Amino acid sequence: MTDYKTIGKPMPVLDGREKVTGQLNYAPDVNVPGMLHARFVTSPHAHATITSVDASAALAVPGVVRVLTAVDMPDVPPKSRNRLFLARDRVIFAGQPVALVLAETPAAAEDGAEQVWVEYTSQPAVVTIAEALAAGAPLVWSGGQPGATGEAGAHGADVGDADEEDEKSIKGPNIANGFVMDRGDVAAGFAAADVIVERFFTTSMVHQSYLEPMTTIAVPDGWGNGMTLYASTQAPFYAREQVADVLGVPETAVRIIPTTPGGAFGGKFFLYEAFVALAARVVGRPVALSLTRSEEMLAANPAPAAELYVKLGAQRDGTFTALQGDIKVDTGCFPSYHGVAAWLLGSYYQTPNLESRYTEVFTHKVSPAAYRAPGAPQATFALESVVDEMAQKLGIDPLELRLKNASKPGDPLADGGPWPSMGMHEVLQAAQNHPLYQHRAEAKGKGHGIGVAIGGWPGGTEPTAAQAQLHRDGTLHVHIGAVDLTGTPAGFVLIAAETFGVSPDKVKIVFGDTANMPYAGVTGGSKITYMVGPSVIRACEDARQQVLAIAAEEMEADVADIEITDGRVQVKGVPDKSMDLGELARKTMNFGAKHAPVVGNGRHANTEAAPGFCAQIAEVSVDQDTGEVTVHRLVAVQDVGRVINPLTLEGQMQGGVMQGLGWALYEELAFDEYGTPLTGSWVDYTVPHFIHAVPDYEMVFVETPAPHGPFGARGAGEPPIIATAAAVANAIANITGGRVTHLPMTAPRVLAAMGNP
Amino acid sequence: MTDYKTIGKPMPVLDGREKVTGQLNYAPDVNVPGMLHARFVTSPHAHATITSVDASAALAVPGVVRVLTAVDMPDVPPKSRNRLFLARDRVIFAGQPVALVLAETPAAAEDGAEQVWVEYTSQPAVVTIAEALAAGAPLVWSGGQPGATGEAGAHGADVGDADEEDEKSIKGPNIANGFVMDRGDVAAGFAAADVIVERFFTTSMVHQSYLEPMTTIAVPDGWGNGMTLYASTQAPFYAREQVADVLGVPETAVRIIPTTPGGAFGGKFFLYEAFVALAARVVGRPVALSLTRSEEMLAANPAPAAELYVKLGAQRDGTFTALQGDIKVDTGCFPSYHGVAAWLLGSYYQTPNLESRYTEVFTHKVSPAAYRAPGAPQATFALESVVDEMAQKLGIDPLELRLKNASKPGDPLADGGPWPSMGMHEVLQAAQNHPLYQHRAEAKGKGHGIGVAIGGWPGGTEPTAAQAQLHRDGTLHVHIGAVDLTGTPAGFVLIAAETFGVSPDKVKIVFGDTANMPYAGVTGGSKITYMVGPSVIRACEDARQQVLAIAAEEMEADVADIEITDGRVQVKGVPDKSMDLGELARKTMNFGAKHAPVVGNGRHANTEAAPGFCAQIAEVSVDQDTGEVTVHRLVAVQDVGRVINPLTLEGQMQGGVMQGLGWALYEELAFDEYGTPLTGSWVDYTVPHFIHAVPDYEMVFVETPAPHGPFGARGAGEPPIIATAAAVANAIANITGGRVTHLPMTAPRVLAAMGNP
Repeated sequence: MTDYKTIGKPMPVLDGREKVTGQLNYAPDVNVPGMLHARFVTSPHAHATITSVDASAALAVPGVVRVLTAVDMPDVPPKSRNRLFLARDRVIFAGQPVALVLAETPAAAEDGAEQVWVEYTSQPAVVTIAEALAAGAPLVWSGGQPGATGEAGAHGADVGDADEEDEKSIKGPNIANGFVMDRGDVAAGFAAADVIVERFFTTSMVHQSYLEPMTTIAVPDGWGNGMTLYASTQAPFYAREQVADVLGVPETAVRIIPTTPGGAFGGKFFLYEAFVALAARVVGRPVALSLTRSEEMLAANPAPAAELYVKLGAQRDGTFTALQGDIKVDTGCFPSYHGVAAWLLGSYYQTPNLESRYTEVFTHKVSPAAYRAPGAPQATFALESVVDEMAQKLGIDPLELRLKNASKPGDPLADGGPWPSMGMHEVLQAAQNHPLYQHRAEAKGKGHGIGVAIGGWPGGTEPTAAQAQLHRDGTLHVHIGAVDLTGTPAGFVLIAAETFGVSPDKVKIVFGDTANMPYAGVTGGSKITYMVGPSVIRACEDARQQVLAIAAEEMEADVADIEITDGRVQVKGVPDKSMDLGELARKTMNFGAKHAPVVGNGRHANTEAAPGFCAQIAEVSVDQDTGEVTVHRLVAVQDVGRVINPLTLEGQMQGGVMQGLGWALYEELAFDEYGTPLTGSWVDYTVPHFIHAVPDYEMVFVETPAPHGPFGARGAGEPPIIATAAAVANAIANITGGRVTHLPMTAPRVLAAMGNP
Repeated sequence: MTDYKTIGKPMPVLDGREKVTGQLNYAPDVNVPGMLHARFVTSPHAHATITSVDASAALAVPGVVRVLTAVDMPDVPPKSRNRLFLARDRVIFAGQPVALVLAETPAAAEDGAEQVWVEYTSQPAVVTIAEALAAGAPLVWSGGQPGATGEAGAHGADVGDADEEDEKSIKGPNIANGFVMDRGDVAAGFAAADVIVERFFTTSMVHQSYLEPMTTIAVPDGWGNGMTLYASTQAPFYAREQVADVLGVPETAVRIIPTTPGGAFGGKFFLYEAFVALAARVVGRPVALSLTRSEEMLAANPAPAAELYVKLGAQRDGTFTALQGDIKVDTGCFPSYHGVAAWLLGSYYQTPNLESRYTEVFTHKVSPAAYRAPGAPQATFALESVVDEMAQKLGIDPLELRLKNASKPGDPLADGGPWPSMGMHEVLQAAQNHPLYQHRAEAKGKGHGIGVAIGGWPGGTEPTAAQAQLHRDGTLHVHIGAVDLTGTPAGFVLIAAETFGVSPDKVKIVFGDTANMPYAGVTGGSKITYMVGPSVIRACEDARQQVLAIAAEEMEADVADIEITDGRVQVKGVPDKSMDLGELARKTMNFGAKHAPVVGNGRHANTEAAPGFCAQIAEVSVDQDTGEVTVHRLVAVQDVGRVINPLTLEGQMQGGVMQGLGWALYEELAFDEYGTPLTGSWVDYTVPHFIHAVPDYEMVFVETPAPHGPFGARGAGEPPIIATAAAVANAIANITGGRVTHLPMTAPRVLAAMGNP
């Protein structure tokens, strides 16, 4: 392996101290002079027409300045959820904003919101996928369905939805979108199988449960045209595009200042930013909206519930002969584009006969959007449960069976295209070699089950730029356009230090806003290290060349004889001919200085994504009387391409696994038969608690270098959430013999699977 | 002349609308949560020892949090005025801060400051240059004088002070610094003269009279190390260097956010920033200091008063045979480095025999610093009065006499070096051709005098960088590191539009702070257009090349066949093969896009300054009974190298001439014999009022291209203030026959010069 000076060394998260001591300001801490505080009045009905809205009592509340209803807002077609704004004459989910109270204080806004009286006439609602697809069901969009591109798509390569050539489209009443990807002849494939496993699975609607609620502060300029927004968004440039479009101004008339997100996980691309901007324009004052936890549970961007059918056929030796999948996603009141679920289901393993169906179904519920590897946990839970059961039936080691059928680079994807460089086999082998897997017989001896599963994520691409500027104290400022969701900037410090030739403490990452930062696209899709990293390398290399040229002139030597080592620039082999980098910088940043400032420029584009696979081994025990599951150990084995920063990689993987445990065992946004949300707070909705829900973790890195990745690194953010639920389910099956097919795997469901209904 | 599309077209100041409607926020508008408001307690004595400070009554004022005195501050050696902080045991000027009251509101701070009781023992003070140089005078710095580099030096090329090789140093009690520049033999020169004129002049201490007072808000980070400052500074990088040095942290641990200055004129490089930063560190909270107008008059950075002796000898034909100058500057309690005055005095005209003396004298008064062309108005008033009188005595046309002796490029400067490219002759000729000058006999017929004078400024250099980023709506963002003092950004819009090939409305200038903006050094020294312009050109040209390469690939054409015209990129001669720049940008800033973002990088350094000359023709009348002067017309003729933006150039010249009129007729910071300031507000200190003090202006551009300037442009900010006082004085002499030799030329002084004492 190459001998790196800084790559692969542990580097703590850059703002860790500020975060843990409460010093760091988040969007809700932003206080713009003169700003009004906004509070929603939301619909209690899943489907209703609005008869009247009476704001007079609210307006009498001291401090309330204005109550906006639909008539105050421009009648923008609701072509996507983030353009739904205030309900005009009908509500289509419980929690939908009907009025917006603007007040001088948050308390006055809240008091005012309680005094807005809305009369509804309730209408029949479709709440479940089955209801929505039933003949004669009420249509969520009777007047024609909205069209939009969704944030979920931005997480993976361009798959599933956009390229319809190899797909057959699925259409129908209350169907948002759908397709079939197929090859060969599944009927013939199942006929050729020795063993067939088929199962029906469900997964729940799950909230990303970031600590900081969605927040936007919109500040109009004095002319009714431009707008500056402080926003807790992962996607400042995308939010700028959308806000500008809604306001009808050029994109650069809008400035998005992304605040450090207090968690996002895919949920904070863009939702209420344009809404708040419109409100600010209407009242001509800055407006701040920070959701309550309850509004988060009612009206944010959760992950969709899904129903999944999987049928797998195999020969006695384990060769898969056919795979059939039918994934139905409950997309609430707007399309959410989770088709990557069907694409992954049909791509992990090779089989000559494939049919992978995807249907997105409208219901009268809040619409979902991206949550870390959107669609993948659902599809993987189903497929990896079935593969596990197949191994059991065939009497083949579960990892052997996977290794026999797992895709390799160049193998066909569900859509026919080839897999790019990826390390599914390497990950499976590393999992197989892990002691926890090797000693699963011993675990069983003490009543513990061992389950294994694998999941993968295609990864996204988006062009990026970066700059590197050498300052007078020898510090290199690296300017990037990404938001710090996950600690990736600590990795950029290592990349910059390695490339430029200084120690990491001489590198500082500079963030910005859409007016002043280089482009990095959305922070999501497991692509920040993968796509921004190469721009950082180029910027630092450019800066390095500039330093060498200046040093050569100052020290009267040939450029080829100059080197940067340990923060000094020197003539090779002439130790006394050297110069501190700060000294050199001061020769470029001073009155009358003769050298131009050192500013390296890096630009990068690359459309080949770098998929990342993560296998997980879970050790569980199950209470025989209650069905309660305890996860004792959890090993995640992930192909990260190249370990840039082991600390943040481990943090990412721990976080992903933790959230995977939430999917597996705890989390569900529940609704009654009328579509009324039952889980309006973290009292009702269980998020795994760090103290009592965290097992003994182990994170194992596999390095299958990505050809275009910085030092070979590939995206690491999304893969670790994908296989957790399946690994836990397989571990439960391993020790109880029962297959739990519904997420979350609550104690009653486990008891039922164990045959104790 | 080259046919430009945008260069030379009028472009309004970019934030003009915000400024005139009060929408723009200045430093005093910054409101940081939790910040304390600071108010000085200042010394009423010019020189005293401090016996006691009692803050107990102040601390009892509701809202007062802390009263800092010297014992609370680190004992930093006061090596420059901006490190004087709180008086430790002695005060050396009236207005010097003795204590700092920190309170929750500005009003509480002010109330508290009135309740701090300081006991002084008055000490003898030296108030005038004569007193300071008298034998046995009290020394301002009895324990050794402070050493520093000054802001005044940053305005011009490296002259006068730094390079002592060709100078003889002048030293002595209460002398801050001094030198002689000479060549030939002045005694012999005067002996060879047919006519000799000699005069003694004085000029007053003058305040820059920016509308916004000096303001700093210092926000410490949570760890007692770094600091963010919002500051009304012209020199953010210099302020960063100084604050970091005082705090004992690396420069990049300090972030200076320069707010748009509400006027600066050289006075806002750096004064109280480190002081406020220290106070914030001591109390561990953000601290805001915004001077009152009175504090501005007492304790800011005015221009120094000066005493000037000039002796000029000439032959009958007008050839100068010798020039002797002796300039003494009242530098108050700290050195201020106005040596460029003596350098200019000895450089404007050619004579074989020269002696130019410069002495900077300490007094117990506030120390001065830079004010627009620091030192030049003083030296030029004296020299150009004497040259005018010489023309009168010789009976030679005053402009003919100047043209005969004026320096040309390559001629020796006072320090022996050669004049670089400059247009003194071109300016004099344009003035001579101007109708106001041609028709001066007619003016005299109606009782008006016509006076003429010329002044020049060497200009400064400092390396710069800039970036140009193409956005999705086709707008080009140009990132610069300068502060917008004077409207130069409107010129950068024209430069960028011309270079990149778009209309000016598709260019936006982006400012920043020391952490995120490219370097531009101090905004001062008439060097922003001259030094930043070339970086803007390079950044835009780099961006243009990137656009051409992307377009070539997209349109399947050769790069050489692509052009950018009117915001579109197209294949030459194939009108239907074209693409909007926004469309192209969206192919670089989108999920899955295949081209890298367009980011042009520009870097520039150049050590040859571009001097700028400005001649002025004044038409005045003088009330025979009162001596009151009315300026009817004022024509300024200036070599700007190349007119980038006529609107901002004209604005700069108007402002300079207006301030020149202030020097000429109105302004004086006055002191009594004890050193007590007499002009503590704009009631006592007369600033020319826009309505009744502005004559009929005319601004004439001369274009002598500067070899390294952008499109040939040279700095234009400082020259127009220089010659005004001399032109007005010469006009007064022209109509009254009386020579006023003291600035400001108040009615009593004019009456006295007319022989009516």
